[in-house]
Amino acid sequence: MNDLKVSASIMCGNPMKFGWELDKLEKAGADLIHFDMMDGHYVENIAMGIYMLEQMKKRTSIPFDVHLAMFHPEKHIEKIASILDENDCIHVHPESTVHIHRVLRDIKRMGVKAGVAINPATNEDCLEYLIDDIDMVLAMTVSPGFAGQKFIKQTLGKIENIRKMADDRNPDLMIAVDGNINAETIPGCVKAGADVLVAGTSSIFKGDDADYKELIQKMKDSVK
Amino acid sequence: MNDLKVSASIMCGNPMKFGWELDKLEKAGADLIHFDMMDGHYVENIAMGIYMLEQMKKRTSIPFDVHLAMFHPEKHIEKIASILDENDCIHVHPESTVHIHRVLRDIKRMGVKAGVAINPATNEDCLEYLIDDIDMVLAMTVSPGFAGQKFIKQTLGKIENIRKMADDRNPDLMIAVDGNINAETIPGCVKAGADVLVAGTSSIFKGDDADYKELIQKMKDSVK
Amino acid sequence: MNDLKVSASIMCGNPMKFGWELDKLEKAGADLIHFDMMDGHYVENIAMGIYMLEQMKKRTSIPFDVHLAMFHPEKHIEKIASILDENDCIHVHPESTVHIHRVLRDIKRMGVKAGVAINPATNEDCLEYLIDDIDMVLAMTVSPGFAGQKFIKQTLGKIENIRKMADDRNPDLMIAVDGNINAETIPGCVKAGADVLVAGTSSIFKGDDADYKELIQKMKDSVK
Amino acid sequence: MNDLKVSASIMCGNPMKFGWELDKLEKAGADLIHFDMMDGHYVENIAMGIYMLEQMKKRTSIPFDVHLAMFHPEKHIEKIASILDENDCIHVHPESTVHIHRVLRDIKRMGVKAGVAINPATNEDCLEYLIDDIDMVLAMTVSPGFAGQKFIKQTLGKIENIRKMADDRNPDLMIAVDGNINAETIPGCVKAGADVLVAGTSSIFKGDDADYKELIQKMKDSVK
Amino acid sequence: MNDLKVSASIMCGNPMKFGWELDKLEKAGADLIHFDMMDGHYVENIAMGIYMLEQMKKRTSIPFDVHLAMFHPEKHIEKIASILDENDCIHVHPESTVHIHRVLRDIKRMGVKAGVAINPATNEDCLEYLIDDIDMVLAMTVSPGFAGQKFIKQTLGKIENIRKMADDRNPDLMIAVDGNINAETIPGCVKAGADVLVAGTSSIFKGDDADYKELIQKMKDSVK
Amino acid sequence: MNDLKVSASIMCGNPMKFGWELDKLEKAGADLIHFDMMDGHYVENIAMGIYMLEQMKKRTSIPFDVHLAMFHPEKHIEKIASILDENDCIHVHPESTVHIHRVLRDIKRMGVKAGVAINPATNEDCLEYLIDDIDMVLAMTVSPGFAGQKFIKQTLGKIENIRKMADDRNPDLMIAVDGNINAETIPGCVKAGADVLVAGTSSIFKGDDADYKELIQKMKDSVK
Repeated sequence: MNDLKVSASIMCGNPMKFGWELDKLEKAGADLIHFDMMDGHYVENIAMGIYMLEQMKKRTSIPFDVHLAMFHPEKHIEKIASILDENDCIHVHPESTVHIHRVLRDIKRMGVKAGVAINPATNEDCLEYLIDDIDMVLAMTVSPGFAGQKFIKQTLGKIENIRKMADDRNPDLMIAVDGNINAETIPGCVKAGADVLVAGTSSIFKGDDADYKELIQKMKDSVK
Repeated sequence: MNDLKVSASIMCGNPMKFGWELDKLEKAGADLIHFDMMDGHYVENIAMGIYMLEQMKKRTSIPFDVHLAMFHPEKHIEKIASILDENDCIHVHPESTVHIHRVLRDIKRMGVKAGVAINPATNEDCLEYLIDDIDMVLAMTVSPGFAGQKFIKQTLGKIENIRKMADDRNPDLMIAVDGNINAETIPGCVKAGADVLVAGTSSIFKGDDADYKELIQKMKDSVK
Repeated sequence: MNDLKVSASIMCGNPMKFGWELDKLEKAGADLIHFDMMDGHYVENIAMGIYMLEQMKKRTSIPFDVHLAMFHPEKHIEKIASILDENDCIHVHPESTVHIHRVLRDIKRMGVKAGVAINPATNEDCLEYLIDDIDMVLAMTVSPGFAGQKFIKQTLGKIENIRKMADDRNPDLMIAVDGNINAETIPGCVKAGADVLVAGTSSIFKGDDADYKELIQKMKDSVK
Repeated sequence: MNDLKVSASIMCGNPMKFGWELDKLEKAGADLIHFDMMDGHYVENIAMGIYMLEQMKKRTSIPFDVHLAMFHPEKHIEKIASILDENDCIHVHPESTVHIHRVLRDIKRMGVKAGVAINPATNEDCLEYLIDDIDMVLAMTVSPGFAGQKFIKQTLGKIENIRKMADDRNPDLMIAVDGNINAETIPGCVKAGADVLVAGTSSIFKGDDADYKELIQKMKDSVK
Repeated sequence: MNDLKVSASIMCGNPMKFGWELDKLEKAGADLIHFDMMDGHYVENIAMGIYMLEQMKKRTSIPFDVHLAMFHPEKHIEKIASILDENDCIHVHPESTVHIHRVLRDIKRMGVKAGVAINPATNEDCLEYLIDDIDMVLAMTVSPGFAGQKFIKQTLGKIENIRKMADDRNPDLMIAVDGNINAETIPGCVKAGADVLVAGTSSIFKGDDADYKELIQKMKDSVK
Repeated sequence: MNDLKVSASIMCGNPMKFGWELDKLEKAGADLIHFDMMDGHYVENIAMGIYMLEQMKKRTSIPFDVHLAMFHPEKHIEKIASILDENDCIHVHPESTVHIHRVLRDIKRMGVKAGVAINPATNEDCLEYLIDDIDMVLAMTVSPGFAGQKFIKQTLGKIENIRKMADDRNPDLMIAVDGNINAETIPGCVKAGADVLVAGTSSIFKGDDADYKELIQKMKDSVK
């Protein structure tokens, strides 16, 4: 397994001062910036466009993991990938396109890491013919695009299954968990095989005064 | 006709410090904040979610005019309108829903101003049975959602026609123009009947050092 | 103009005993049965399938006017038309198909009357190249598929315009009005040129005890 | 396994007197009323709207199992669930929404039982992360929305697999079978693990004279 | 008005030997090749892909007028336009995209003529803000994508209206007519203002033995 | 296993002389003609309509395997199947319809062989309840509808799994492979269980001078 990483979900930051948030996260040692792009159709919300990703990428040296919660991601891949580099990752949902293999291959061809985002009810069978070539799996532990949801425990068994698939075929595969990730839920996720923790309002973004360094450390310490 | 107003397209501001932008616009006397919500399907871009509108509304006292460049706006109207008040306006495209009358009525019912957004090729005939009840028309002078486009001159004739319709039936109707609005294009628009100027990168958002007060004044002076 | 007709919206009848409702309407002298087919997408509601139309057609000799409030009506035309005859009419929305001319022609080819349903904000321009060949227009005076709406007064001007178009080119054209049609709204509709009144809960279906004959007469008398 | 139950598919009843049908079913001891909502897009037919469910629920004390054969069921869940109670169940197809986990959770949150409807070719793998939390599975033994189809034998193996999954993780799970369920097909279904039999024209609704009590008993006896 | 031109609808040629058809048309003096691209959704048929256009363009020096009978034509414009040159034209339907102005502008920007295709029921109002900048209108005289249809006479009035609009604002505008164009229907079309005749099975493609030169001449002579 | 067969992808032939291509393939002993129908939405390209299939079927006695790379194939099945006979096969993608079982059954009912087309990332689990009744599987070894792609090696494991499923339950099942099939990739495919090789530009259609007989033989010999 890889080292434990924290990916700060910038959408949960203060939208009045995203630059300040990014600087603060950089100082606090956040490992990744989680960037949600939502189209209001695949999920209920609309959020975070390409032009914003472009500005954020210029501002910080922290790598990005971009979550495409949208239908027809193939329309946007080229523009998004052209902003990113080999340390960043783009996640695509198998339900959002009939050509997931092709979309992931295009992401890799443009020099960016490729990931598969998995909804709570989606079976890991969808990874069978993708897992050798991808860099990350984003296991949703709540349904994407809805606020204030409870962590779904059944996803832990799925994470275990994915980690087993990866052990054989792609040992470097990172598994990120996203949805109500905090001190209570982290130990189970990590035990199951997760090594990237997406951090939102319940663990890092607790207001402008929050000490991100301490909170990130707390997340990592929660597994000891 | 109404007084000339400038609506600052916040999407063109610096996304690293939207709070700072809003404060600066408030001091500079911007009349309206133009807020584009884009779904990546009705237009090519994804931009500016509801949660961001919520934060911005808290930050500034400048009224908002919200442009819904999305399919099925009826899905989101209730949430958006609940954030806004009677000084704000929501614009909907007739091509984006088969129930435009109903959507506009719902916006009004929730105590918010209602507007109709009109694409460059869309005929003003679509306003015939709406114009009595709406507060604003957003006449697109470029196709929405694409950057760096030329101002489309034919839209001036359309603005004249809309102003004539309004003179008879709804004299308080505001007509906003959106797309490459600057010193060169403003006089034609205002002569045709526009009284709200949506200001983007070509007129206000010229970088962090820009003097918004002066630039807003310049826009208004360009018609003298 | 034609004689005034009342079309009883069977969807507003008691769904526990549609047969009883049809018999009662037949005795009361209802001129037409208005049958709404709704797909839950073009409008919010789902209602009244083909198999039900089939049973109702067998039960009553009153002609039907069938309102297709659905996307892609072309998928269902053949089955629906095969149930009906030359005294019945099928209404299609221009926004629901890109081939409205073709759909109406197919309805006529199968020996059924063809009508165009017009939403409150839809301009009568859409009838320009259809009006010579159709039998009826269904002018919606509220947005279809939503309950408890107010009658939209602007539609009266539209009905006048349609009647003028018809006077020149298709004098037998029937114009039906649908949406909050009652003693208060009928005189305006008829004056504007309507001659078919769609009757729902606000005029006929006032409960099992209602005297339909009297209520139908009241509707017709309200224009004297 | 649970006791064998018969769910009478009210859509196959006489639509001229649904109230009479419900009373007759209640007297005959039907265990459930199967209520199909069809949108004409997910399946070919349009059928049985919300307002009809509302009236039927008032008429009978028999619990309902509602089958949503429609795209985007999330649009209608709140209205439907608000009519029902803890003895009723709503079935959703995994192919009809990308957020099946969320939709089922919403149904449960509103106090109604939740079920998953499975098309003939759909693999039971889709239940892996849902089965712990649901109350019923509706295994389609023909393709939904098409009349006069043959029972598909391969579905028996699937029912066995689902029963095995349930034995371990959710022993109270009910498995309903729907599609050409009659004396010939019932024994195989029950042996495979089904305990709710959806009864249509081939087993109960054989005309107004049919003795429902006897026919329901016959269905139950066919497994002895 | 322009000289009368004949555009041979290659889709009606013998698909076993398109090269031979093109050579024969070139010798016969066909003015244009009409190339239909159909997606099976906007119209019922699927036909004639980009790779075929590419090969045909290499084979003949006759200019092409390409008719995009498809949804979302913007997805394919760049590839199609890159095959064509300034003598060719691409027609787009206003109902097929919400950004018709933008699509036409993109066609022109790539050095190809731009046209608007108009369905039988579509009002010429849709041309109001496009007519100054386009090169051709394709007036459908039958519904596109369906075989064996009757010429729709009402479209003649529409062609007259378009010609009047063009006289004032774009005198070089070509108006093509498409659908059952033959000796009987040509005189009316030309009198109304058409100057490009799309020729299919009813006028040119009458089998391998047909004398295209003579048949083309016959079409042109029919207006004398 | 069955004898090795070569299916010549006619779309890769010279579109200027498809008749000549078919004759040449017949003389060369091609076992099948692979006919791709693409709608420009399920895949990027538009290609090869029904009318062309009709002409080709008349021209050659070689059986066809028709690949429906389109959404909503059910709309077109009846027309396509009516052209074909019991030696031909139609392939449908499970992602393209929610009623795959029904579509395949309809194909069989019309006397044509039925096949399932499987995208590179699609799991063979989708065959579980179909494999008993189908005649062929079309295993895509590249993503359909995109040119110039690399053979995807992971699909070999999938073909092995499908062959194993077939050994037990449907030993006559043919497995076709499609996408960069040539001397290099054939041995692996055949070893995994494929017995139909779809031949495109990389193996047969190498220009008008190509000796198809020799090239077909070479493909078959490559496994010795």
